[in-house]
Amino acid sequence: MLNTPPFRIKGRKTLLLADGEFPTAKAKTAVCFIRYREKDAAVVLDRGNAGKTVFDTLGIGRNIPIVATVEEAKAFHPEIAIVGVAPRGGHLDDIFREQILECIDAGMDIISGLHVFLEDDKEIREALSKSGSQIWDVRRVSEEGTIASGNGCTTGARSVLTVGTDCGVGKMTVTYELYMEAVRRGLNVSWAATGQTGMILRERGIAIDRVISDFIGGATEALVNLEGVGKDVVLVEGQGALIHPGYAGVTLGLMFGAMPDCMVLVHDVERDKVREYNVEIPPLSEVIRLHQLVMAPLKDVPFAGVALNTSCLGEEEARDMIRTVEKETGLPAGDMVRFGAGEVVDGIVECLTKKGR
Amino acid sequence: MLNTPPFRIKGRKTLLLADGEFPTAKAKTAVCFIRYREKDAAVVLDRGNAGKTVFDTLGIGRNIPIVATVEEAKAFHPEIAIVGVAPRGGHLDDIFREQILECIDAGMDIISGLHVFLEDDKEIREALSKSGSQIWDVRRVSEEGTIASGNGCTTGARSVLTVGTDCGVGKMTVTYELYMEAVRRGLNVSWAATGQTGMILRERGIAIDRVISDFIGGATEALVNLEGVGKDVVLVEGQGALIHPGYAGVTLGLMFGAMPDCMVLVHDVERDKVREYNVEIPPLSEVIRLHQLVMAPLKDVPFAGVALNTSCLGEEEARDMIRTVEKETGLPAGDMVRFGAGEVVDGIVECLTKKGR
Repeated sequence: MLNTPPFRIKGRKTLLLADGEFPTAKAKTAVCFIRYREKDAAVVLDRGNAGKTVFDTLGIGRNIPIVATVEEAKAFHPEIAIVGVAPRGGHLDDIFREQILECIDAGMDIISGLHVFLEDDKEIREALSKSGSQIWDVRRVSEEGTIASGNGCTTGARSVLTVGTDCGVGKMTVTYELYMEAVRRGLNVSWAATGQTGMILRERGIAIDRVISDFIGGATEALVNLEGVGKDVVLVEGQGALIHPGYAGVTLGLMFGAMPDCMVLVHDVERDKVREYNVEIPPLSEVIRLHQLVMAPLKDVPFAGVALNTSCLGEEEARDMIRTVEKETGLPAGDMVRFGAGEVVDGIVECLTKKGR
Repeated sequence: MLNTPPFRIKGRKTLLLADGEFPTAKAKTAVCFIRYREKDAAVVLDRGNAGKTVFDTLGIGRNIPIVATVEEAKAFHPEIAIVGVAPRGGHLDDIFREQILECIDAGMDIISGLHVFLEDDKEIREALSKSGSQIWDVRRVSEEGTIASGNGCTTGARSVLTVGTDCGVGKMTVTYELYMEAVRRGLNVSWAATGQTGMILRERGIAIDRVISDFIGGATEALVNLEGVGKDVVLVEGQGALIHPGYAGVTLGLMFGAMPDCMVLVHDVERDKVREYNVEIPPLSEVIRLHQLVMAPLKDVPFAGVALNTSCLGEEEARDMIRTVEKETGLPAGDMVRFGAGEVVDGIVECLTKKGR
């Protein structure tokens, strides 16, 4: 069930294909790669920002160049090209298709998180066999599947799930920041990647939103039990949002598959509505309560903390916002990217310690 | 997106393959076919009950014979064979495979609701091309899909969704009974089949549990908008249960795709736990409240009634139970199969009339 790349990713120079989308929310795969694999991010392709550096447009990523064509990108000797956008529905447009073919001709290995599998495209397959490049279709999942048992992680590891007020609020980022902080503290921890961006960092995982819907929970369960082996804690990257008209089914299936011992709520303070939908995000304490009510028939699941994306606020405002959220929810809160994951990891440790199995 | 059979079903003599499972809950496809297409149900294959009639084992279905082999079934001249079992996970075992091959050799068309597609089986394909038979893989869905818009049915039809306390409690049966009662009253109504059994009766639909999980809501939305054309009301067959560890993702995706104007709760009074899981079914009023809380961020959705399966009770007990549930929930209740769908259709009409668009 686990999907792993046919080639090594870490330590190889990478071109991020993000044409027309950098550095918007749709380019989240590219942005996350730059954040957590900065050394490997050799060059970004985005015609609109060509000539600038990543730092100019994103505020991180030092002087990584942005170019307009694959031809120009080749000057930076990329070995891998990542389709660094996550379009709604996951389809491939003609511009990306052309760029991918050029990358293959130049001998690069390709990573794609699209719903459409590049390996199923005849022209792309022919180009691959000519150049010797390989493709990792991150979203490829087994057609086979199992129905969730409802037992969650049975390896002895406790599981912690990130859930959100919307998609694209930073559940993957938060999961990874929590993981790194937990590692720094010497905890025996792993994490389960459930979406394309996380899987590229983790170099394995299952794209839960691509699984046949009967098997969402079963696939999550299988993944958590793989990542939990020999660990005390497994952090599970959530997907979608329980209040999201398009993705809530994936979210709930994943919740019941993971059967977490505690959850962390992720929220972007700039967002008051679900993106692209006319759905207001309720107060965070209500969102927390909703998740607990939905889990309640199966398991009482406490929340360990709230992870905020405060990037739209100045530093003082951000700290005020965090205090306000702590007061409203009664939980430790923080902005992991900005101020570290310490408080929320404290919350997780407290949750898991308080409530023994 | 809509899946339709390559041959006519209604009016043709049908063999129901239900070996080892008749008339258990796993043979629900066969049982429902007998209930609603009694004239077409020519013969049942189930070795354990061979020699009896369907009436002997099920209490309905008159003297439809039960036989032990396809060879014996041929005496009743079936033109279609239906894989009449719905095993957990939807896989095909060797016994059924052998029987299906025999049916094909005998010239029967085949209907299968399994997750495994018969048409993808080389030996079965070869047998088909030899005999000229055709196969309808009911669960086959398009790989393509769309993300739900959150707008539900936009044809002008109001939508009514059945939801359950578990899977296999009778959501399909209730949807179909409500449909027939609504037709009897002259309402301009259609229904949307979302699972294999319903699709066989409807001769079209989408097997929602087979759709890629990102597209559950989008597929439901597409289906409801097809069935809603030119209608005042579209009844939507629900799937799974919001409290089901294995299937809740499908259930919620379907709820958000259908965006119902009202819901009907379906419950089997014999069941106090989710079948095969250690999850207690909460009091019905709590189950109702849970569905409403989950829908609330998107839409306030009233319940129109409660449909009970009281088959484990005597008639007087059943009527008492219905009154008790009416008192507990404040909603009209009934057992559609036993006492008719009148009360709940009244409830639906009241719901849809009270709350104009």
